[in-house]
Amino acid sequence: MIIQPVVNIAEICARKGVENVVLSPGSRCAPLTIAFARHGGFKVRTVSDERAAAFIALGMALTTGKPAVLVCTSGTAALNYAPAVAEAYFQQVPLLVLTADRPTEWIDQLDGQTIRQQNVFGQHIKHSYTFPLDVAQHDAVWYSERMVSEALNETVAYPAGPVHINVPLREPFYPAPGEEVTYGPEVKVIEEETQEFILSQNVSLKLQEEILKYSRVVVVAGQEKYNLHQLQSLYAFSQSTGAVIVGDTISNIHEMQATVRYQDVFLACPDAEKLKQLQPDLLITFGKSVISKSLKQFLRKYKPEAHWHIQPAGQVADTFQALTKVVRCAAPSFFYSLAGSIKNKAAFTKAWMGMNEKAADFLQTYTSNAVYSELSVVAKVMQQLPSKSNLHLANSMAVRYANIIGLKPEQEVEVFANRGTSGIDGSTSTAVGCALSSTKINTLLTGDMAFFYDRNGLWHNYLPQNLRIIILNNHAGGIFRLIDGPKQQPELEPYFETKQRLNAENTARDFGMKYTAVNTLGELGKALPEFFTAEAGAGILEVFTNSPENAEVFEKYRRAVRSIEF
Amino acid sequence: MIIQPVVNIAEICARKGVENVVLSPGSRCAPLTIAFARHGGFKVRTVSDERAAAFIALGMALTTGKPAVLVCTSGTAALNYAPAVAEAYFQQVPLLVLTADRPTEWIDQLDGQTIRQQNVFGQHIKHSYTFPLDVAQHDAVWYSERMVSEALNETVAYPAGPVHINVPLREPFYPAPGEEVTYGPEVKVIEEETQEFILSQNVSLKLQEEILKYSRVVVVAGQEKYNLHQLQSLYAFSQSTGAVIVGDTISNIHEMQATVRYQDVFLACPDAEKLKQLQPDLLITFGKSVISKSLKQFLRKYKPEAHWHIQPAGQVADTFQALTKVVRCAAPSFFYSLAGSIKNKAAFTKAWMGMNEKAADFLQTYTSNAVYSELSVVAKVMQQLPSKSNLHLANSMAVRYANIIGLKPEQEVEVFANRGTSGIDGSTSTAVGCALSSTKINTLLTGDMAFFYDRNGLWHNYLPQNLRIIILNNHAGGIFRLIDGPKQQPELEPYFETKQRLNAENTARDFGMKYTAVNTLGELGKALPEFFTAEAGAGILEVFTNSPENAEVFEKYRRAVRSIEF
Repeated sequence: MIIQPVVNIAEICARKGVENVVLSPGSRCAPLTIAFARHGGFKVRTVSDERAAAFIALGMALTTGKPAVLVCTSGTAALNYAPAVAEAYFQQVPLLVLTADRPTEWIDQLDGQTIRQQNVFGQHIKHSYTFPLDVAQHDAVWYSERMVSEALNETVAYPAGPVHINVPLREPFYPAPGEEVTYGPEVKVIEEETQEFILSQNVSLKLQEEILKYSRVVVVAGQEKYNLHQLQSLYAFSQSTGAVIVGDTISNIHEMQATVRYQDVFLACPDAEKLKQLQPDLLITFGKSVISKSLKQFLRKYKPEAHWHIQPAGQVADTFQALTKVVRCAAPSFFYSLAGSIKNKAAFTKAWMGMNEKAADFLQTYTSNAVYSELSVVAKVMQQLPSKSNLHLANSMAVRYANIIGLKPEQEVEVFANRGTSGIDGSTSTAVGCALSSTKINTLLTGDMAFFYDRNGLWHNYLPQNLRIIILNNHAGGIFRLIDGPKQQPELEPYFETKQRLNAENTARDFGMKYTAVNTLGELGKALPEFFTAEAGAGILEVFTNSPENAEVFEKYRRAVRSIEF
Repeated sequence: MIIQPVVNIAEICARKGVENVVLSPGSRCAPLTIAFARHGGFKVRTVSDERAAAFIALGMALTTGKPAVLVCTSGTAALNYAPAVAEAYFQQVPLLVLTADRPTEWIDQLDGQTIRQQNVFGQHIKHSYTFPLDVAQHDAVWYSERMVSEALNETVAYPAGPVHINVPLREPFYPAPGEEVTYGPEVKVIEEETQEFILSQNVSLKLQEEILKYSRVVVVAGQEKYNLHQLQSLYAFSQSTGAVIVGDTISNIHEMQATVRYQDVFLACPDAEKLKQLQPDLLITFGKSVISKSLKQFLRKYKPEAHWHIQPAGQVADTFQALTKVVRCAAPSFFYSLAGSIKNKAAFTKAWMGMNEKAADFLQTYTSNAVYSELSVVAKVMQQLPSKSNLHLANSMAVRYANIIGLKPEQEVEVFANRGTSGIDGSTSTAVGCALSSTKINTLLTGDMAFFYDRNGLWHNYLPQNLRIIILNNHAGGIFRLIDGPKQQPELEPYFETKQRLNAENTARDFGMKYTAVNTLGELGKALPEFFTAEAGAGILEVFTNSPENAEVFEKYRRAVRSIEF
């Protein structure tokens, strides 16, 4: 039987610009599956493991900036979406999650694939709707159509995020012979002109006055998608004020020449005098999370007098325990409004830039002379990334190594990482989702644990030929040898590091990907140029290192960092 | 730093009989990891994919009947537990879920691996606790110890299920050099003498009187673990009353000779006259879900005058839309109390037993002459299962085929299946968990979709040598060709069946398992005896069939069933 309001979900999605739909197979969800598959206006793909499906949709929403739609059947399917839904919630990525359900009267009646799906995503969803089961009455139809518009509007309203519609459905699920699926033309669509969060003249004048007290201003950018308009405003502000601009790789501001990018290196300096010179009187932040532990520790210790955080709306984090003011506007509006409002002390700005340059020189020399280990491997990979490509950084060590090495402005590489929740559970799937909705080369830099955890990100029929996976395989959760604490415990190998024996050769064979194993820096240098060509197609480059050796090299690196003469 | 109340969690678990602990690696959970790993009183294993880890723990709790303990770090780790936690909730399996968390003040502060973990399992958990963060005060210690006892008591109290303790922890997570972990001796433990749910004499007399009205009594057993005491009571009741006893494979009553076991076959009979003869006046049920669709449809159509459901406590399902009375006691108490209370009409009982025998004869002839297809493969496998072994049935087709074929009393095979939520997400892991905590041969009968979905159930260092995996590989979700509806849709292949190309040979190689591919019934017959020997070790037997051919054979089977002359 065709339920027109269910068919109309697809039509409303199409009219509101949805492009990508990821289905997972099921019978209860058949009316939704058919509505999207038969529509013709979407790229519809089927991914069987719902955990992977949801991260793939997340990747698609990341590259397109538009809500991706997920459709699954009833039961634990929805629970398998939960890790990606939480990541989307905290990384603020628009997803519309449609879960088929049994009608309420059949919940808890011991029927198959039945759980309690209402509000199943708990506190990690912007809104949870229940689609009307009986749509004979006119108001129910109005409600069902309004709901889809509202839900899509909410996915993109700041802060963007996931919205859930639970769709209870009665049998029969399939169109009867001869029954035709028709879309529209009469469906209700509610557009939303989104708020641009411009700073009012009042507040702008007030801030222009308040900022005059400060002359040691540092701006820290948290995780953000690449945004040229934002970059330009930041440039205008820093050029006109001399303010120091600091950004981790995931802040995607590395295209700006004068950005401080080696903070994770030089803020590990043990010289309190030197660090004291870098203490800001005003810290301005925008964006989401920060990776650099040195930066976090520095700012928590050398607290600014004032910390202004720019965020259009929503709950604000006090990441550095120094927050004094929240400014409710979009970052570009703030930076343009306050451009030229002050002049940083030249010595202060110079101190930061000087440390940054010394750290750059150190890294250049250190990594080009380093022995074969994850650190030198990541340095080589980062240098050779194709320009104008996407880089995906898996948790946990890949993203940290990459953040030490940093990216050069001229590379024009956009960086993605699941730092909303920092899980290892969906890095591969997210990269796959990005690759499927992008024409660029998408390189995933990952560890063996994250890779095998999310192997099902490759288990479908849509292998993107622009995907490149580089696995740092040390046959363990190598991070536990690198951080203090676990390495002194007898439980290190069996329970923290958790040795695992897999390599990815069989996986590459399973999924028809080119496979290259690398065991030296020389081999890596030889493999990378070919690997990164557009013609090479989807490939896995697996770099084998030894976990205790990596730990030794990393320890040496940390000692070397502490002895840099600034 | 050692937090004694956290150490004491392990000690209390040990004193209350916990045997199996499944950890997933993390740093935030290090105090818990160390407490369990260093204790010496547990079998502690590490599984990296939390989704698999939780299903493995579920398997352990299923075989041992004791709560298994799960330990994970903060962040999405807990969300990956959710599918198994929901299965444990509905299948009523005791699990103690310990999730490390950041302290409350650091939630939503953009730190890594931080989500909102309180009540993260929503409506699929018996109870959610928050462990005290500050344990300097005496009452907090009392609370922390009381909580662990209470939680463990709740996991096993009827209905058994999962209980969650969220454990916020501050750094440092690791014992300082020289700091020693000591257990007890002074920890508070609260024992619980569990309720046996005996029928009172009052109620018993009342029921003995009420049951006198009925002479066409049918007992249907839902999913239950094998339980000799229960079987004996059922035997006593059926012998003394002539009541018809019906059970699917997952009810584990097939050891009883006079059980009706081919209901899925003969209740598909299209002859309304014949079916009408089988209509009970009193239906008595106990246990959880029923697989047979024929049985459900029959009872919903030919409703009994009265339906008594025996269930000690908790919410009751009205599976057949016929429920008239809930009896609050354990099934054995009911059956012993009412043994000999009535005499079924001999003709009625004979009608059921006659249909059952005819169905048995039909199956015997039909499957031994059938062409190579999943149905004949499953028949052969079921016949040849080692006696006194465990059989795990994955959703979705494996469990249905196996329920058609049924098990003979003399096989003494116990059947497991995740029919709490009927997901395909954890069948392999559950079988692995059972195998790890059992000395029997554990055979998993699964499809390719369920197998690859949960491939990470094998990704750890504890491959159980008593594990046998038989994969019915038709390179798709074959069920969609077997049920009405999807097979008539143009979306069948791309969006319902979802063709997948993997076979398990590379997986077997990855995990060091013996691998045998089978393409004919002859090859299967040759492979099975060796495969099932105790010495064969962990193995995968992959049976390749063709999805459209399976569908054709199954359709023929259904036609044949409808034309049996009863």
